[in-house]
Amino acid sequence: MSRFDHRKYQRPPRVTGFTRTWPEREITRAPIWVSEDLRDGNQALLEPMTVAQKQKMWKLLMDIGIKEVMIGFPSASQHDYDFVRWLIEEDQIPDDVTIAALTQCRDHLIDKTFESLEGVSRAIIHLYNSTSTIQRERVFEMDQDGIIDIAVKGTQRVKQNAAARPGVHWRLEYSPESFSQTETDFAVRICEAVMDVWGPTPDDRIIFNLPNTVEQVGPHHHADQIEYFCQHIKNRDSVIVSVHTHNDRGGALAAAELAMLAGAERVEGCLLGNGERTGNMDIVVLAMNLYGMGVDPELDLSDPDEIIKVVHECTGIPLHPRHPWVGELVYTAFSGSHQDAIRKSLRKQGEDEPWQVAYLPIDPRDIGRDYQAVIRVNSQSGKGGMAFLLERDYGINLPRWMMLALAPHVQRESEKVTGELGSAAIRSLLFQHFDRQAPISLVDYSVRRAGEGQKVSVTLSEDGDQFTLEGQGNGPLSAFVHAWNEYTGDEIAIADYAEHALSTGSDADAIAFVQLKSDTTRIPAVAEDADTLSASMKAIISAINLSRETDETGQRGGLTALAG
Amino acid sequence: MSRFDHRKYQRPPRVTGFTRTWPEREITRAPIWVSEDLRDGNQALLEPMTVAQKQKMWKLLMDIGIKEVMIGFPSASQHDYDFVRWLIEEDQIPDDVTIAALTQCRDHLIDKTFESLEGVSRAIIHLYNSTSTIQRERVFEMDQDGIIDIAVKGTQRVKQNAAARPGVHWRLEYSPESFSQTETDFAVRICEAVMDVWGPTPDDRIIFNLPNTVEQVGPHHHADQIEYFCQHIKNRDSVIVSVHTHNDRGGALAAAELAMLAGAERVEGCLLGNGERTGNMDIVVLAMNLYGMGVDPELDLSDPDEIIKVVHECTGIPLHPRHPWVGELVYTAFSGSHQDAIRKSLRKQGEDEPWQVAYLPIDPRDIGRDYQAVIRVNSQSGKGGMAFLLERDYGINLPRWMMLALAPHVQRESEKVTGELGSAAIRSLLFQHFDRQAPISLVDYSVRRAGEGQKVSVTLSEDGDQFTLEGQGNGPLSAFVHAWNEYTGDEIAIADYAEHALSTGSDADAIAFVQLKSDTTRIPAVAEDADTLSASMKAIISAINLSRETDETGQRGGLTALAG
Repeated sequence: MSRFDHRKYQRPPRVTGFTRTWPEREITRAPIWVSEDLRDGNQALLEPMTVAQKQKMWKLLMDIGIKEVMIGFPSASQHDYDFVRWLIEEDQIPDDVTIAALTQCRDHLIDKTFESLEGVSRAIIHLYNSTSTIQRERVFEMDQDGIIDIAVKGTQRVKQNAAARPGVHWRLEYSPESFSQTETDFAVRICEAVMDVWGPTPDDRIIFNLPNTVEQVGPHHHADQIEYFCQHIKNRDSVIVSVHTHNDRGGALAAAELAMLAGAERVEGCLLGNGERTGNMDIVVLAMNLYGMGVDPELDLSDPDEIIKVVHECTGIPLHPRHPWVGELVYTAFSGSHQDAIRKSLRKQGEDEPWQVAYLPIDPRDIGRDYQAVIRVNSQSGKGGMAFLLERDYGINLPRWMMLALAPHVQRESEKVTGELGSAAIRSLLFQHFDRQAPISLVDYSVRRAGEGQKVSVTLSEDGDQFTLEGQGNGPLSAFVHAWNEYTGDEIAIADYAEHALSTGSDADAIAFVQLKSDTTRIPAVAEDADTLSASMKAIISAINLSRETDETGQRGGLTALAG
Repeated sequence: MSRFDHRKYQRPPRVTGFTRTWPEREITRAPIWVSEDLRDGNQALLEPMTVAQKQKMWKLLMDIGIKEVMIGFPSASQHDYDFVRWLIEEDQIPDDVTIAALTQCRDHLIDKTFESLEGVSRAIIHLYNSTSTIQRERVFEMDQDGIIDIAVKGTQRVKQNAAARPGVHWRLEYSPESFSQTETDFAVRICEAVMDVWGPTPDDRIIFNLPNTVEQVGPHHHADQIEYFCQHIKNRDSVIVSVHTHNDRGGALAAAELAMLAGAERVEGCLLGNGERTGNMDIVVLAMNLYGMGVDPELDLSDPDEIIKVVHECTGIPLHPRHPWVGELVYTAFSGSHQDAIRKSLRKQGEDEPWQVAYLPIDPRDIGRDYQAVIRVNSQSGKGGMAFLLERDYGINLPRWMMLALAPHVQRESEKVTGELGSAAIRSLLFQHFDRQAPISLVDYSVRRAGEGQKVSVTLSEDGDQFTLEGQGNGPLSAFVHAWNEYTGDEIAIADYAEHALSTGSDADAIAFVQLKSDTTRIPAVAEDADTLSASMKAIISAINLSRETDETGQRGGLTALAG
């Protein structure tokens, strides 16, 4: 066989012996959301989260309204153990939130899991073992009864530990790991054996979590497996069926969504699809899918930029610009006919009628975004200039975020004038909207190496007064930002940055672009000067001055006045 | 209503009046793949492709075996027009490949489209107009008959143009744009009106492409729409049903896959999911999904790194590290139990039996990748060191790609020794495998500013001879690389780069990491020295020396010897 040969692989068998009803159904309410960010998400990082990052992630999960959080493997990881202790001892778990702790079916690990939870009011013990054919035959070399025995003994040990600690609401979650590669009738059998030991009731249900540990089948096949399970498991009203999908075939979302139609009431996933290999199911996108169909997602996703920021800070993985619902390019329209259709339908959209706008599935303002009509004033459309013209005529290379910020201004201007906008007009718009050397202006600065970083001293002027700020950082710009924050008490940072030399068409020799971050606001700014360092310093000053102006959307967050 | 309020949105109505069979079906063969990379993909870029980039994309599409390529809007864009002319006049279209050209239903645009295709042997004219309720009511203010009239008149004009140009195999593709927001029976009606004009036969079928222009419904709902269409369209055997899905709800792949079950025979998409807003359906992932089920994808995806490289070069959008099948983190296993299960099943995997390895849906070697067991020798697992230990004990911050490259060496070493690997051992492994100051070594260098960039002169020694290379670049490293390429005729480049000062535990004061690119090979390398610039120069030399060694996988591409 050649290296790239499909004949090495087999189609997994389909599930039979049930009545398929899921394709008819509708999702009418949100599932119980379970965050795996601190477990699967964290486990899949090259650099796992620090304590501070875990605490930040926990706060975010609480802010958006997640009610069940898997906190990790306290019996196997000291870091997870310490984090659980922090949650309990610092009283961080709200009354309506339940934490879950994962453990293998081994006595000492189960005992240590309970120890780690000392003092909690309620918790889920999440017990699992591998049940798939491959795992039984090739990893554990055990038959089905042997695998059931592991799960049953584990459940007994959990029950003993729970009985020894009354006054706490202990719940059991059991996962037949690799459920989707397990014979579905065997999955039912092992879950029923666990159920017989635990003894759930309709008022205190057991959670059976059915992991699509590695996605190897289409979402319709997965939905069949879930519906088979829901129809065959005994005492269905004493069971919460939970799904946990991964994205190996790019179908984690669809698999979870169709599984909800098939009967799943609880969904485990991570924010923005972090998680092992290709990631876990993305809670943000599934919740927004419900939202866009008029179903209450029961999560507050009104500030996705905060979610994006915290997830990036905790995982180190940036968001893809085309990420559904929240990526940078999602509410942009490049095509003239799309822009036209959007404008016309926006004009007809009534205040109180259901949303009916072509090409925009939701109102971007719901999640703090703007609709961005990006005009193709470039080489492609032949209609004039922006990025292309600025580069051709002035050697200016706009960073992506500056293109997006400048586009609406160019758009508006191009609607005012007859004919094409020239490159000079586009260049003026850039500086008119994004360069501000007043009221604060740069008087002087000096930079010197200090240890591993740089020390800057910057003299600024405002309303005739001069102020000298000093700070240290990895480079002169971060040193300036630190100096500013120290002097004013603001918390600004540089979100992105670009500078280059200029060769043509300008008096200046260098241009710098800065995207300054203040809270959740990002302020794009520009400046020119004789050298890149001076241009960069002035670009930061542009951003600071701009932050105090209120633009037409009123969205900018004003920074502190120096003399204030 | 508050800003974030789901009650603004409505669930789109479901399709009724057909017999649902798709959930039972299996995909048994690949669809006709249609690349939209030069159309939807290109249109959605902040900076559309240059002619050179389009030519590079075309070559890639041919190399992987795409047989139908949408080349754009030659009647509306001079760039698309010129590209079609280049394809035809330079005889770039293989005999088994058909290009498609998009046009609105307007006479002068249709005429110009045919003009642009002068000299072609076969082509698809792709005609479209918007048919959705919102577009009819809010954009065009027209009733259904008015919309049908546009499509019929367009088809007549295409037919006239085709009749006037005999000897060419003209095919018609018609898209009721926003099909998924169109009443499905109306979509059938308008397609049948087009069919009546065109007169397709089973030997020369018409293509009806049914775009999910904006994804607003689940993939099961979309499959229902496609199956309804397939069951109701007359002369089904004279029709090729095509789908074109977008990823607004994260379901473009699932929608296309379920649509194939529902009867679609042709799928339009882009490589790696580029395309408007959230992107078009990802051809690479859907094809790999077929591959993993044992279905011949009828595309050669054995070198995804080349696809990733060209797509990045043409779109400027990097691949997400968790991208299904081909992302950087996809074949990594962090968890000890996963690593253990993979090792055990790999050991039992026979040469000629179907692939049965836990956690690895395919053999990564099929697509030129390795299975990477990333050991958690870090703060999380408490098992020792790597990244965490190197940082704690030596202040070394490994870039991600160096962590991945170093991990297998640490893994192998940790299997040899009893107990834990210490940070000193890990540091030795780093330099042992990635630092090479022989046979080529650095004798001296000088750098000076030259215009907008830097000029370097580097003296190297090899086998006792000295060589002085000179070059220019944006910075000293790129200048060195240019000098090397000019002197040797190699084509190396710096794919990634990191350097920082060192404070502790080392004689050197600075460390530099370089990922050198030579063809499709990436060579990670490291070096230390008294300052970051010298360390960086030496890291490039490390990479050059390493490129001439053959490692155990035999994968490195040797560069030229200086004296050769």
